[in-house]
Formats: sequence, C-alpha cells, structure tokens
Amino acid sequence: MNDFNQLPAHVWPRSATRLDDGTVSIGGVALTELAQEFGTPLYVFDEDDFRARCREMADAFGGPAHVHYASKAFITKRVVQWVDEEGLCLDVASLNEAKVALAAGFPASRMTAHGNNKEPEYLQLCVDEGIAHVVLDNTDELKQLNELAKASGRVQPVMIRVKPGIDAHTHEFVATSHEDQKFGISLATGAAFDAAKEALATTNLELVGLHCHVGSSVFVAEGFELAAERVLSLYKRIHTELGVSLAELDLGGGFGIPYMPYEEALDVATLAADLLAAVDRTAEELGIPAPFVLVEPGRSLVGGSAVTLYRVGTVKDVETGKRELPIRRYLSVDGGMSDNIRPALYGSEYDARVVNRFTAGEPTDSRVVGFHCESGDILINERKLPGDIRPGDLLAFATTGAYQYMMASRYNGALRPAVVSVRDGQASLMLRRETIEDLLALET
Amino acid sequence: MNDFNQLPAHVWPRSATRLDDGTVSIGGVALTELAQEFGTPLYVFDEDDFRARCREMADAFGGPAHVHYASKAFITKRVVQWVDEEGLCLDVASLNEAKVALAAGFPASRMTAHGNNKEPEYLQLCVDEGIAHVVLDNTDELKQLNELAKASGRVQPVMIRVKPGIDAHTHEFVATSHEDQKFGISLATGAAFDAAKEALATTNLELVGLHCHVGSSVFVAEGFELAAERVLSLYKRIHTELGVSLAELDLGGGFGIPYMPYEEALDVATLAADLLAAVDRTAEELGIPAPFVLVEPGRSLVGGSAVTLYRVGTVKDVETGKRELPIRRYLSVDGGMSDNIRPALYGSEYDARVVNRFTAGEPTDSRVVGFHCESGDILINERKLPGDIRPGDLLAFATTGAYQYMMASRYNGALRPAVVSVRDGQASLMLRRETIEDLLALET
Repeated sequence: MNDFNQLPAHVWPRSATRLDDGTVSIGGVALTELAQEFGTPLYVFDEDDFRARCREMADAFGGPAHVHYASKAFITKRVVQWVDEEGLCLDVASLNEAKVALAAGFPASRMTAHGNNKEPEYLQLCVDEGIAHVVLDNTDELKQLNELAKASGRVQPVMIRVKPGIDAHTHEFVATSHEDQKFGISLATGAAFDAAKEALATTNLELVGLHCHVGSSVFVAEGFELAAERVLSLYKRIHTELGVSLAELDLGGGFGIPYMPYEEALDVATLAADLLAAVDRTAEELGIPAPFVLVEPGRSLVGGSAVTLYRVGTVKDVETGKRELPIRRYLSVDGGMSDNIRPALYGSEYDARVVNRFTAGEPTDSRVVGFHCESGDILINERKLPGDIRPGDLLAFATTGAYQYMMASRYNGALRPAVVSVRDGQASLMLRRETIEDLLALET
Repeated sequence: MNDFNQLPAHVWPRSATRLDDGTVSIGGVALTELAQEFGTPLYVFDEDDFRARCREMADAFGGPAHVHYASKAFITKRVVQWVDEEGLCLDVASLNEAKVALAAGFPASRMTAHGNNKEPEYLQLCVDEGIAHVVLDNTDELKQLNELAKASGRVQPVMIRVKPGIDAHTHEFVATSHEDQKFGISLATGAAFDAAKEALATTNLELVGLHCHVGSSVFVAEGFELAAERVLSLYKRIHTELGVSLAELDLGGGFGIPYMPYEEALDVATLAADLLAAVDRTAEELGIPAPFVLVEPGRSLVGGSAVTLYRVGTVKDVETGKRELPIRRYLSVDGGMSDNIRPALYGSEYDARVVNRFTAGEPTDSRVVGFHCESGDILINERKLPGDIRPGDLLAFATTGAYQYMMASRYNGALRPAVVSVRDGQASLMLRRETIEDLLALET
C-alpha cells in the first residue's frame, strides 16, 4: 500500500477513514454510496468536523460569543442552524446572506452586518430586525443609517471598520501601509477618529467598537497583534478626547487552513492565546479597559469540513513536446471550474485521492481537468497521482468547504452539484442538485 | 464636453447613442429607463447588433452554413432563436447546452457537439436527436459513440478534434508545439491519423472531417492558416493512404474582439478571405479537394452586443500611502465579481461610461469595485474616470456579452441579474432576475 491511500488528517475531514475494502467513508458513510445515491459532482460536509472546529475556536477565544462565523465562506440554512446550536455569532456580508440567516431562524441579536456598498434595503433590514452590529464602512453610510434608525425610532449598535494599515497575507506579514483597498476608514490619516466622533454624536447610533481585518489565510498572530495595537491606540484617543470607552474590538477573519499535506495545521489555541494576551497587554499599557475581543473565522471553521466527489471520465496520455515532462496524463472529471473556480482564480491547490478502492498505481505525472470547453479548466495543474486511475473511479478533493459552492457558476450549462451532510452513519441532503428546469426557469 | 462622453463605436453596441440630454440609448431605448424598469445590475443585449455581426461573419465566410455560433459564450433560448433565424449553425459544449438549444427549437441537423469528457447521456442524446456532428475528443469516446449509434441503428456523422500543435493567442502566434492541453488528438505523433483510420473502419460512424482550435482572442489569420496547412496535410495522408476525401474542415473559434478603445476592431472580411484563400491554396498544392470550411465564433458575435448597467453606490477617496498615486477614488457598484469574474480571473479590462447624464468631470485616478466582501472584487483596477461620478449614477460596461453571464455566481448571495434585449425602441426581458426564493429553492 503506498502513500496515495493515506488521508492526511490535517487536510481531510476528521471522520474520513479508509475502510478495509479500500473505500473511504466520512461521517460513517461510504463515499461510494453517496456518489451512487446523490450523483457526482457532490459536496460532502462532515457535520461533526464543523461543530468540533466551532467548539475549538470558541474555547480558544473564551466562549462562543467571541466567535462570528463568516457566512460568506459557506452559507445554507442548515449550516446557519449548526452555528446557532453551537452558540456562535454570525457575520453576513449582504442583504441576501442576512435573509438566508433569518430564514434559518438565526437570532438577529447575534448577527453582524458587513459590506462596502450596503443598499438602503439592507440597512433598513438591519434596523428592523435588530441586527446586533452594523459595521460601517464609510461616513455616508453612517449618516444614512442614523437617519433610518431615527425614522424607525430605534438605536442601532454599530462598529466602524478601520484600516489598520497592515497586510498579513499567507504566512508572512508586512507591517506596511495597506491603505489602498476598498474597505474601511483610515486610522493613519485620522479619518477613523473623526468617524468615531461623528458616530458618537449621532442621535440613533450606538458605537460599540471598531473593526479591522488584516488579510486572508493567516497562520500566525503577529499581524493581528500589530493591528490590535494600532486600533487600541485609537481606543485610547477616543477614551482620552471623547471620554468614551469602547467595549468591543473586532479583529476580523482570515485564519488560514492547510489545503495540501505539506502545509501545517492552524494552531488555533496558540494563535488565540497570543492574540488575546497582546490585546490585554496593550490595553493595560495604554491604561484603558481591555475590550471584549471578536473574531470572524469562515474558512478555518468550514473549509476543512467538506470534500468534493468527482467521477473520472476520460484518461488521456499526452505527449507534451516538453523535454522536462514528455508525457502528461490528463484525467477528466465531471465537474471543473464551474464548481471550483479557485485553482483558475488563485492558483489554489487541493489534495485529491481515489476513494472507491485502494490504489496501487505508480506515481504518474498528471493533470486533473474538468469537462468545460476551456483549456484553463484545470483543477490540479501538475501532480504525481497514482497511475492506475481509470474511467469510473471516484476522485475526492479535500478542503472544499469554503468559497467553492458559494462561487459556483452554471458555465457550459453546469448544474450546481448537490450538497449533503453526513453524521453518525447518516447522510442528509442539504442542497439539492440543480436541474435543467432550474436553468430554464429564468427564461421568459 | 470631454472624451468621457464618447462611446467608441468599435467597442460599444452599434446602436449605442448619447442623446441630447446626455443619457445613452441602445436599440432606441434609454438605459436610464431600462435601469428603472428592470433594476441593476442589468445586461442589455442589442439584438440588431448581434444579428448584424452574424450576417457579416456569414458573408465573410461564404454563407451562414460556414459559421457555427459557439453557444458557450452566451446561450439563452432567445439567442439560439436569433442564431436560427440568421441561418447559422450552433455549437454546444455540454449536454445541457444541447438541451437548451433543443428546447429553443434549434434543429439538431445544424448542431455540433463538443466536449472533452462527454457523458454517455450526452452521446446518446446526440444520436437520438440527430446532431449533425459530434466532435470526438479521444478514441475511447469514438468506440463508445459507435456502440451507441449501432444500438440505435443510426450512423452518426463525426469529426475528430486534432491538435495542430499551434498556439495563436492574442495578436501573436507562436508556431510551436502546443500539445500539452486536454483537448484533441495529436497530429504530430500520428495519433490523429490512427483515430481517423479507426473512425473510418467503424460500422456506425461517418467521418466527415477534422476539427482544430488555435486559441482565444486571435485577430489575424496566420495562426489559422498554419493550422489549416497542418491539418490539410493529414487530409492528404487520409486521401492517399485510405482513399477518402474528407469533405469538411472545422477551424474552430477564437476570433478576438476589442474590449478597450485603444484596441483595434476585428477585420472579419480580411481574416476570412485570408483564411479561405490559404485553405484553397494549400488544398491545391496538396492535390486534394478543398474542404468546406467551418468556423465557430462566439465572443466575436456576441461579446460586443451587450453592456452591463450598474448603479454607483459609494464613492470614497482613499489615501493610498503610495508616492506615485497618493489618492485613489473607489467607486463601488451594485454588482462585481459575481456577474463579471473576468477581471479577477484574466485581468480583463472593460470600457465604462456614465450613461445617465453628460459628465464634465476631470480625469480622476479611480478604481471600480463591486459589493462583495473580498478585496479582489475589482472590475476596473486603475483608470482615469470622470471626477464627477456620484452615488446614484448609472455606469455601463461595454462588451459584456460573452463569458460573463455564463460564468456568473451567487457569491455573497448575489442574484443573477436580469437580461434584456432591445430593438427598435422596444425592450424585452430575456432572462428574469433571480430572486431570494430561487436561492432558497435548493434548500431541503
């Protein structure tokens, strides 16, 4: 048995197991059975894996009230209900994400509303439903929301999104200005202070804290710590000049996850401890009360909880005409850039395994492509994969829970795959597969 | 009046006109009225523009039977009907594209079926419906289709997709091997000849010709000519060794269009004349009958026929911290990467104009962003745009007919925009806007 039969534990859902017959099960359900019952491509979510990640994140940060699940990573009514049952809060980034969450019965009192371009209907819904926090992105919105709240006779709690001037992308962080982006109000220029002052002077907004975001796929606390130090310096100024102690500090999302076996797992406990210690220490040094810290993970809660199942169609050995790689094997699957745009969009890599049997194939230079009529429709660009993969095999891609289904398209008439959740040996359809009727339903 | 009020004719739909009151009309309908009636974001297709491009392409290539509209660029029942009425043929690249075309009443006898990973149901539909050509991508498929045709008692006309070993992307062409891609069977290795021989030996396939494709966004004939020469050398070998003269030659798609004013228009007439002359000349030199030439334009027929209308939400001046560009204006619109992934995916650029009034603004360093909760949600990265754009303005993007709606997602709960067609002062809804109910309809 070679390495190709392993399921690296930090990349695959926690319940993923290769059984004695070589098939793989998740949540106690064989993936071959899921493919049989629900068809392919298919997203499979491990419910216990997701819930466990929610609990670990909550424990690390001092309780579920500190953790806001970022629904943009993956939102369905069922996932929203899981988040609710785990006691976490919920971030939404648009009117429709808010509507899905409310339709699932999630309490508005534990929701935060984001967006750089919130339409009036979205702001009005926040006021009407009593969304816990609206994160203001600019001062026009501040004025607009105050007027809406006033007209409704409500006081709307808000945070202000500030730019801490930090970019902490992917394993490194560069403590330089990252002001040139659409979100938030600059801390460095003093605009954020002015906005806080303006919010505090309104009749119908209650400023509860500031929000910042340092990047995506961050594995270490330094970027968050530096952001916290900068934002807390503004808390100090607000404390001193305006006599107000802001109660909450939202440090945003962006925790990374390993997609490939060679990447390390996120150490949530260490990251949280470092970050919380830095906030306490900084607040003490500044002589202000330490705020209640919020974080907004999405990818790190849900990304690793799901896999995508594809059926292999054609297998083709191509003479490349390249001396360094004379033959490349092309494996075509029944999905592609319609259900996973991330390889094309970001060059993202995924771990893929044969899950319907043991493989004994020799490492073979391979490329995994989709069915789309586009040469850039590539899911795995260059990888040694087992040489015995054949048409009909089931290929599963790990860590496909975040930013895949949400970004799915109907390119080339692709229908959105079904989504199932699994737990305790039971599979349950979460989102049904689209049909040609869905596709034609928009025609007039 | 400055340049910002112009609508460069080679980039904008042919009927686009700026009226005396500063608003822009297409197909005789004011875009302000369309935005009012159908909301934004909104795709607007100029029917006459599309039909004119179809006719010009047909005229250039010797008649509509030579031209296959590549439906992957943009397919709806209405567009399929326009293609039918113009007498063109239709390419589909998947089972569902075929189903949409058939649902629109397009005759299977003028359809060609593509795909690198055709599922059995797709091949069966081709046989059952009598699709004019199935373009075979590999020999497994060849065997499979022959069996299906035999079981149905039919003879299925086929072409074989060959790799001519040419990559003719974007204004340049590199006459080197481009074998390392998923589509087709290599000409250089002799595999294409073997496949042709195999097809000719089957009981239920009729080999009518070979198919090749040289790239995307090609403006000049050289790449096509070289491909034609190489493929015709295989026609010659088949003629000589197998005693068969293949009647048709499909040179694929890939004609470019200008997206930006500084790009030149595609000279269809010259390209076609050069290409057809090259085919005739080569066939004569080889001493074989000149085949009937097919081409498969998609983008060049539909890309320039449509615009996307957005409403400007927030306008924000950002101090970038960059010496070379201290201030950048961020204009947020009510769409973004959900309805146009091409800037994020390919770095594509688009011409955008204010269409609800004259603008007299000074050129201002601007970035146009969407509403999505992602910093990469950028529609125009860096451009001088009029400095008087304000919230509520209507911004139209030109050349959005191809590969936009087809690749649209529901990211951040975005609903697919409505699509209207306009002609002779009348607007007609082609695809209705998605609703939150559509989004929730997949929940179980």
